Amino acid sequence: MKFKVHNQSDFARRAELEFSRGNIQTPAFMPVGTNGTVKGLTVEDLKSTGSEVILGNTYHLMLRPGDESIRDLGGLHKFSNWDRPILTDSGGFQVWSLGDLVKISEEGVRFSSPYDGKKIFMTPEDSIQIQENLGSDIVMAFDECTDYPSTHEEAKKSMELSMRWAKRCKEAHKTDSALFGIVQGGMHKDLREASLNSLKDVGFDGIALGGLSVGESKQEKTDILSFMADKLPSDKPRYLMGVGKPEDIVEAVRYGIDMFDCVLPTRNARNGQLITSTGVVNIRNAPYKMSEDAVDENCDCKVCKDYSRAYLNHLDRTNEMLGSILSSYHNIYYYQSLMQGMRDSIEDNIFAKFVKDFYNKRNLDIPDGPL
Amino acid sequence: MKFKVHNQSDFARRAELEFSRGNIQTPAFMPVGTNGTVKGLTVEDLKSTGSEVILGNTYHLMLRPGDESIRDLGGLHKFSNWDRPILTDSGGFQVWSLGDLVKISEEGVRFSSPYDGKKIFMTPEDSIQIQENLGSDIVMAFDECTDYPSTHEEAKKSMELSMRWAKRCKEAHKTDSALFGIVQGGMHKDLREASLNSLKDVGFDGIALGGLSVGESKQEKTDILSFMADKLPSDKPRYLMGVGKPEDIVEAVRYGIDMFDCVLPTRNARNGQLITSTGVVNIRNAPYKMSEDAVDENCDCKVCKDYSRAYLNHLDRTNEMLGSILSSYHNIYYYQSLMQGMRDSIEDNIFAKFVKDFYNKRNLDIPDGPL
Repeated sequence: MKFKVHNQSDFARRAELEFSRGNIQTPAFMPVGTNGTVKGLTVEDLKSTGSEVILGNTYHLMLRPGDESIRDLGGLHKFSNWDRPILTDSGGFQVWSLGDLVKISEEGVRFSSPYDGKKIFMTPEDSIQIQENLGSDIVMAFDECTDYPSTHEEAKKSMELSMRWAKRCKEAHKTDSALFGIVQGGMHKDLREASLNSLKDVGFDGIALGGLSVGESKQEKTDILSFMADKLPSDKPRYLMGVGKPEDIVEAVRYGIDMFDCVLPTRNARNGQLITSTGVVNIRNAPYKMSEDAVDENCDCKVCKDYSRAYLNHLDRTNEMLGSILSSYHNIYYYQSLMQGMRDSIEDNIFAKFVKDFYNKRNLDIPDGPL
Repeated sequence: MKFKVHNQSDFARRAELEFSRGNIQTPAFMPVGTNGTVKGLTVEDLKSTGSEVILGNTYHLMLRPGDESIRDLGGLHKFSNWDRPILTDSGGFQVWSLGDLVKISEEGVRFSSPYDGKKIFMTPEDSIQIQENLGSDIVMAFDECTDYPSTHEEAKKSMELSMRWAKRCKEAHKTDSALFGIVQGGMHKDLREASLNSLKDVGFDGIALGGLSVGESKQEKTDILSFMADKLPSDKPRYLMGVGKPEDIVEAVRYGIDMFDCVLPTRNARNGQLITSTGVVNIRNAPYKMSEDAVDENCDCKVCKDYSRAYLNHLDRTNEMLGSILSSYHNIYYYQSLMQGMRDSIEDNIFAKFVKDFYNKRNLDIPDGPL
């Protein structure tokens, strides 16, 4: 992987990641393809939204169909027909989400498969091996996601374990895929800084911020982003994991984040929530039953061009798959257009204006930004 | 509507229906778009399978979102973005399927909406009006589907009611859409002939065979098809309603049928049943878990080109929407290829060879045909 920063507007960056499978223009949004498919979208559709990289979930794919099966079938790219870069998470977050069903030790984590109850022991080395079996382009270090809330002591213990695991991941990583480390430390700034310094010492191709969007307030998240903004290395991509809403993404770009992933656009689409330039449209609402308007009059996607809110309301009410398909398409398209808008405006040195317009269209005040 | 027969091989016909919204090459298969969408397929996908006409269900659409709503939203074509011809059924078959919940009188049928329990009374005139509200290109006469089995007396009574309704439909039909009459009469040949003669007297643009695929044996169906083959008017399109499996369609084309519709390819796709040139592949079966083969090695659709049976097996096992999307696409593509193959071979006067190859690939004996 090569990384170049093309332009910068205050902290916001216009950059590019280069891979043999294609480049990623940042700020970038990565749709989540949990089971080797972004729910409801074909590869052609996904490409036509401008998506350049998708995320695959190590935890789900190792269980079904199994990472070794995928390896034997030629890797996740061939299996799923997605020939552009894939970032795989480490499985750590999903295992952590199992709560009391998981036992964490220095060596790794023990949990049961929810499908067949099989006991699984997973180490940092296993996570790297699994991600390599999948054929990932961006491999994530295996970490423990710190609980929220956590005392300083708990967060320190957890972060330090993640840092020892990060070092083991780096040692286990043998392919030419990129390897990203993950900053932990909960809501404690000194721990976040110590974690970042550990990762810098080990040496990673990119830095992710983990342990956010786990229940903390918006202000707490912004505090961490703000604190990290001038400490993150400028010569490496920065990835805010699991975020999020359009306004969270715009905020994070202001603080210098380059990469994002979230299930929100596809999950909300399946629940009739359409994300638009003026806010969220709940297509189930009765007033849309006879609305000939497009989902978003400012959007030039095929759904907004060819279909009315009334038709999408009807598809939702009749539980038609096409409702989820079209809504997922629009939402991912909206996210990619948002990212494109940010990229263009950073390039043209008018990012501050872009941010102002973004909030104005939503009738929201602009939150205090960096600097 | 204009209708031209281009070529004939024994009873099998290569013909064309002309509409202002586009032509339909026959033998034709019409995918079923019950709620104003062929389940799982976008309009672009549907067109790329070669589909030239789809079916809309009057019964479902009158209930949700309502035919007057669709009319006020510009008609079913605009609503659903399908700009090619649409055939609408009359609602009769679905109402008949309600069984004891429906009361049939000379005037029409009374039933309750399954969604809100509202009592609905529907006459032949209502059915025509609803289909015109939808903006249908091919309107079907409202009929009573005769129960199977039925005594001669029961079938006669039912058929005669349908014929009186057919006349009322003809009188109520005011637009320039095509109007098709439906032959009833159960398994009784004399009644089938009497029904056909009634329809001829009234005058319709096309003739459909109804009351088949309702539980009768294959032999009974073939007997009726065979009996009707030389009696159906040669200058009008012939439509076998609700049929069916590929071999049923090939059989019916041999007996001179031009048009077909069936939910089988999309419904079976959602249940992991893939229709191929060599028979049905149940993609859920364990042996496909590691199969790198295409669904059908003889198919050139994008699913067979880009995906393995292993991937489709995985999508099915993980209940991913993309499994239904890709499987529906393949199945409809297979049906349309089958129709194209029949059209080409009738045109080239090698239909008998086509039929032989069709059965050979499936390792089946060729059933006795017409003549």
